[in-house]
Amino acid sequence: MTQKHHARQEEYIADITVDCVMFGFHDFQLKVLLLKWPGANAWSLPRGPVRRSQLITDAAISMLHTTTGLDDVFVQQFQTFSRPEERWRSGRTHEAAASHPHLTPSLISVGFYALVDFDRVKPSVEGTFQWCEMADVPELLFDHHDVVESALLALRKDLRYLPIAKLLPGKFTLREMQKLYETILNREFDRRNFHKLLMSYDFLRKLPEKKTGSQNKSPHLYTIDFDKYESALQDGISY
Amino acid sequence: MTQKHHARQEEYIADITVDCVMFGFHDFQLKVLLLKWPGANAWSLPRGPVRRSQLITDAAISMLHTTTGLDDVFVQQFQTFSRPEERWRSGRTHEAAASHPHLTPSLISVGFYALVDFDRVKPSVEGTFQWCEMADVPELLFDHHDVVESALLALRKDLRYLPIAKLLPGKFTLREMQKLYETILNREFDRRNFHKLLMSYDFLRKLPEKKTGSQNKSPHLYTIDFDKYESALQDGISY
Repeated sequence: MTQKHHARQEEYIADITVDCVMFGFHDFQLKVLLLKWPGANAWSLPRGPVRRSQLITDAAISMLHTTTGLDDVFVQQFQTFSRPEERWRSGRTHEAAASHPHLTPSLISVGFYALVDFDRVKPSVEGTFQWCEMADVPELLFDHHDVVESALLALRKDLRYLPIAKLLPGKFTLREMQKLYETILNREFDRRNFHKLLMSYDFLRKLPEKKTGSQNKSPHLYTIDFDKYESALQDGISY
Repeated sequence: MTQKHHARQEEYIADITVDCVMFGFHDFQLKVLLLKWPGANAWSLPRGPVRRSQLITDAAISMLHTTTGLDDVFVQQFQTFSRPEERWRSGRTHEAAASHPHLTPSLISVGFYALVDFDRVKPSVEGTFQWCEMADVPELLFDHHDVVESALLALRKDLRYLPIAKLLPGKFTLREMQKLYETILNREFDRRNFHKLLMSYDFLRKLPEKKTGSQNKSPHLYTIDFDKYESALQDGISY
């Protein structure tokens, strides 16, 4: 064992990673950022190690910064997963790990989800990270498919109390916001009632601009007053 | 290093524990089970190690079984905590750890809460484990005070979707159930409206028996139809 290898072992907590489900919303669709492992033809979520001197949230933020270049991303820890040694010693992950030394699963992974403004993300490694629609997520390494599913359930549960609207771009239409809610909750809302409900919370600011594009009408653009949004979330937003 | 010591290191995941907030409800009060460390005059939550071959939930269940003798406890993972090495190298926990080799904090602790029927718990070590009212929780080792606070917040959030009524005894009065909700939510409900709301869900069964005791009236006793309760929780219980 070289001295450098020994130093690295000391620095990081063994057997633990932070695994991150990065959500983005684009073109009325919820997407997730996936990592393609070069040379292994396998996909996973981005993940990173945790230093012994570091809070796990900081480990997640640092990993997201490396991945996306952003340093003000909303992250939320949602569940911790365990993968007992025996269970991954077979199947797809095992094969991939045999071909690629970095593909060994960690025994414990702390799951975070992140909400990012899709337009601002510049994945740092061209072609390696890729946005993928929720419906088209390919087979993932480790238990990352479960992690994605659980993150979506957590997002659904957190919609009342956490600033999920951070997924929207700086300016958006009410139809976009409705679609975001509908996608996360997997149900449809009546347009009029939903807009009335949203406006009743007083955190949306109507802009003078309208959205231009291929649609028949040019709908109004809105933006969020995040102070008012935060205080509405304190009591919980019903829908 | 003895051979036995080496075997133990291999068997468990280093630097990780499961830490458990066991809630009980008794005499209209929410209580939590604490552990008094013999010889250290210090309190903490019960905690346990995680085997490399074990799911973290199983580690929590196994620890709860050792602690209470129960093997059908509802446990819910709610948050994972990290304690960077530098941060606990001072203060109360550091002093206690110096005096007692088992009192070293783990770098990562996966927090679970458990809901138990108070009357059924027989703490296995007389005088070491003790129920404590939420308002009277003493100073706790590690970051266990934060863990208790976070568990209560999680319980509050989960009240819509998880079977929190498992905290009640097999037979209970509507007043007891109301008080449980009020305690967890830290707010008061109008008696009539709350009872009407509860009865609207169809998971309560009125028993022929009444509660006898020191009160002026003898209120009716109720029990829960857990099948109906589970299906009400699927949609979420409003209050």
